[in-house]
Amino acid sequence: MAKAIHSMIRVLDETRSIDFYSKAFDLGIKDRFEFDGFNLVYLKNKENDFEIELTVNHDQNEEYTHGDGYGHLAVSVDNIGAEHSRMEALGIEPTPVKEFHRNDELIAKFFFVKDPDGYKIEVLQRQGRYT
Amino acid sequence: MAKAIHSMIRVLDETRSIDFYSKAFDLGIKDRFEFDGFNLVYLKNKENDFEIELTVNHDQNEEYTHGDGYGHLAVSVDNIGAEHSRMEALGIEPTPVKEFHRNDELIAKFFFVKDPDGYKIEVLQRQGRYT
Repeated sequence: MAKAIHSMIRVLDETRSIDFYSKAFDLGIKDRFEFDGFNLVYLKNKENDFEIELTVNHDQNEEYTHGDGYGHLAVSVDNIGAEHSRMEALGIEPTPVKEFHRNDELIAKFFFVKDPDGYKIEVLQRQGRYT
Repeated sequence: MAKAIHSMIRVLDETRSIDFYSKAFDLGIKDRFEFDGFNLVYLKNKENDFEIELTVNHDQNEEYTHGDGYGHLAVSVDNIGAEHSRMEALGIEPTPVKEFHRNDELIAKFFFVKDPDGYKIEVLQRQGRYT
């Protein structure tokens, strides 16, 4: 069964955001990945295993608008292939399954769907850090 | 400590959204409230206690844009007064604490803050259905 695991937002200033979430909600850095062009920071506390994922795009200089600032909700599933087929059969039109590697390590295997109002939801294989 | 409890989105067609979330993620209706002007629907499954809150505004006829379609992340806290004071002292500038009643029942006691990028976060007293 799908499990909500994080909410992603793009932020302009990584340090400023980490400082805020730490102070306001006691959310600490659970994981942090640097990629070419962007960083991902996962913020978590002990209350539950739902995380906030900060995306920090290195080439972003202007304030985000709240038209494109909001990203997606993410859920993890036991069998991404089966879920992809099931959603296709339901007419939900998932995007193709993609894999995201860093060096030779599989970081994430995922697809996206849109809900009826156009909100994107990322469906991740439950593996690695995405549990 | 703050606990992430739901993510709110405004949707145009309640039935269509409930149907989608049920099919795609096995999220069922945990609670549903009708108010003058709007309904609130809380969707949940057994995987964790994080919910999606659908806001259905009765007078909305046009598609939401994704500039104002996204609402907020919500967290619950043990002592909203203490958290409000603490955040004020940190310079986070919480809005005044408000109470939301239905008939004579206290439904919610809450305030809002904005993160450094302007994302709204609702801080709810941990009571009633907001646990």
